Amino acid sequence: MRAAFDIMGGDNAPDAIVKGALDFARAYPHDDVILVGTEEVLDNLKAVPANARAVVCGSVMAMDEDVRSLLKKKDSSIWVATEMVKKGEADAVISAGSTGAQMASATLLLGRLKGCERPAISIIVPTPEGPKLLLDAGANADCTPELLLSFAKMGDVYARQLLDYAEPRVGLLTNGTEDHKGNKLTAAAYALIKESGLNFLGNREGRDIMTGGYEVMVCDGMSGNIAIKSMEGAMSVMMSLLKKELTASLKTKIGALLIKDGLHNVKHFLDVDNYGGAPLLGVNGISVVCHGSSIAKTIFKAGEAAQKCYNSDFVNKLASAL
Amino acid sequence: MRAAFDIMGGDNAPDAIVKGALDFARAYPHDDVILVGTEEVLDNLKAVPANARAVVCGSVMAMDEDVRSLLKKKDSSIWVATEMVKKGEADAVISAGSTGAQMASATLLLGRLKGCERPAISIIVPTPEGPKLLLDAGANADCTPELLLSFAKMGDVYARQLLDYAEPRVGLLTNGTEDHKGNKLTAAAYALIKESGLNFLGNREGRDIMTGGYEVMVCDGMSGNIAIKSMEGAMSVMMSLLKKELTASLKTKIGALLIKDGLHNVKHFLDVDNYGGAPLLGVNGISVVCHGSSIAKTIFKAGEAAQKCYNSDFVNKLASAL
Repeated sequence: MRAAFDIMGGDNAPDAIVKGALDFARAYPHDDVILVGTEEVLDNLKAVPANARAVVCGSVMAMDEDVRSLLKKKDSSIWVATEMVKKGEADAVISAGSTGAQMASATLLLGRLKGCERPAISIIVPTPEGPKLLLDAGANADCTPELLLSFAKMGDVYARQLLDYAEPRVGLLTNGTEDHKGNKLTAAAYALIKESGLNFLGNREGRDIMTGGYEVMVCDGMSGNIAIKSMEGAMSVMMSLLKKELTASLKTKIGALLIKDGLHNVKHFLDVDNYGGAPLLGVNGISVVCHGSSIAKTIFKAGEAAQKCYNSDFVNKLASAL
Repeated sequence: MRAAFDIMGGDNAPDAIVKGALDFARAYPHDDVILVGTEEVLDNLKAVPANARAVVCGSVMAMDEDVRSLLKKKDSSIWVATEMVKKGEADAVISAGSTGAQMASATLLLGRLKGCERPAISIIVPTPEGPKLLLDAGANADCTPELLLSFAKMGDVYARQLLDYAEPRVGLLTNGTEDHKGNKLTAAAYALIKESGLNFLGNREGRDIMTGGYEVMVCDGMSGNIAIKSMEGAMSVMMSLLKKELTASLKTKIGALLIKDGLHNVKHFLDVDNYGGAPLLGVNGISVVCHGSSIAKTIFKAGEAAQKCYNSDFVNKLASAL
């Protein structure tokens, strides 16, 4: 596989992205690593392994930049890296930069798969049962029932190919588990997914996202984004409350020392960096999205996710499912 | 104030509800407590304070019962208790039973306030800055922009009257904080709330719900329900992971003992039972909704919330704001 890493994208770019990409190059000498970055950044690289090479870009799409400026920045790292996939010069693009810019580059350059009106961003959720999939995590704030059906189909392929679930169970995120719960959108999507032949669980609620009992959670991008960010906020508040209590006195500090490994295990479990990135679903090529605060480990794992997509002929399997 | 407690509603009914109601009666001897329950339950009551009395109902709306059966159960505890408010025999109704049945009883018997097309359920969110308000937490899965505007207005009154905030900041829950984020519904609601004269923050995201920076978070009932339940699920998973780690070995058990008070503080902070219930917003009377798993303390605090509504002329203030 030839993987193009957008080394300019992300809160910790370029250093963390370069490190992750080069770690990947060293771990997989039979794969090719392409570092797409500005001349200034690339000039400072040293000790690059033989299977890594640099491609120069002219600009960068900032994390919060309006995605409409992408069309005026066809020399930006994400555009240049995605264009390499379009031209057949790379097999996958990996970025921790602006998700909007990555999605627009992929949609415009690689095109959409037939049967998926608009691509989706998926996210891996750690649960006590193992990693699960939620989509759409924020790409499509307004959805149609047909779009939710295509998310269900693509999620099913994802769970089988990348998460190794033999019979993924698909849930529809609503405001309760009973059949009559939900809004007009989910009621219509419910009827479509029920007839799809997928292993459909019916309605599921917010509480289920982290507890489990499903493999693929389908929702519109607004609901998915709100759910994921609400959970992140809640867990971060809980962690900081706990930290405050653990450092309150000598007694609690000793207690904290004794449970240090346990706390580390909890943190490790919740650490999204363990899962790297997730491929955009619905575009005709491999474009792996990493969260903005990705560290080197995330990028390394995202390289492995791209590899898994490439080796399993993921995009063609998605196309068939749609 | 004369408060009618539905002692049949809730996972811990009747015992916990009766205890909470009687504790309230003892703490506030100048208020009247009315216990609405079946003959069987009321017959077993003993040592009832002088300011408490019983009213017999014939049936109970089960927690998961279809709300449509309410019209055939006009002898149910929630209907009978709400009817007392309608008839002027009580000033408030308090229930931990089926929220759907409570809302339908209130809407049908007490009527809606002018300017609020459909009532909302609000929920108190504990944040490090103090308690904040989120609405709608699940009553209206499909909303109009005008409905979200009425939620914003009512939330503002709630935050002033019941949470003692002088200048409540109102946020609109979407998939990002930038102005252009959101879906068609929130974009239209944004324009309306901006012109309302409220202290409007603009778009807020899921992460903000528990971290703070606002007093009133406005959303449709689907988004609100998903957000609240997602956070509950995430925090409960985190707590059980932590518990597992703390009991893993003798060393961690000793550590757990040393940090016991700290853990208790975190739990106490997150404990929604501290906040009792929240009044239904948009109905012409006081109907305080408690969550299904309410304990005696919750019911006691819900009595205090009803008292605060009564003493502050809350319903008339809501009507004026609308």
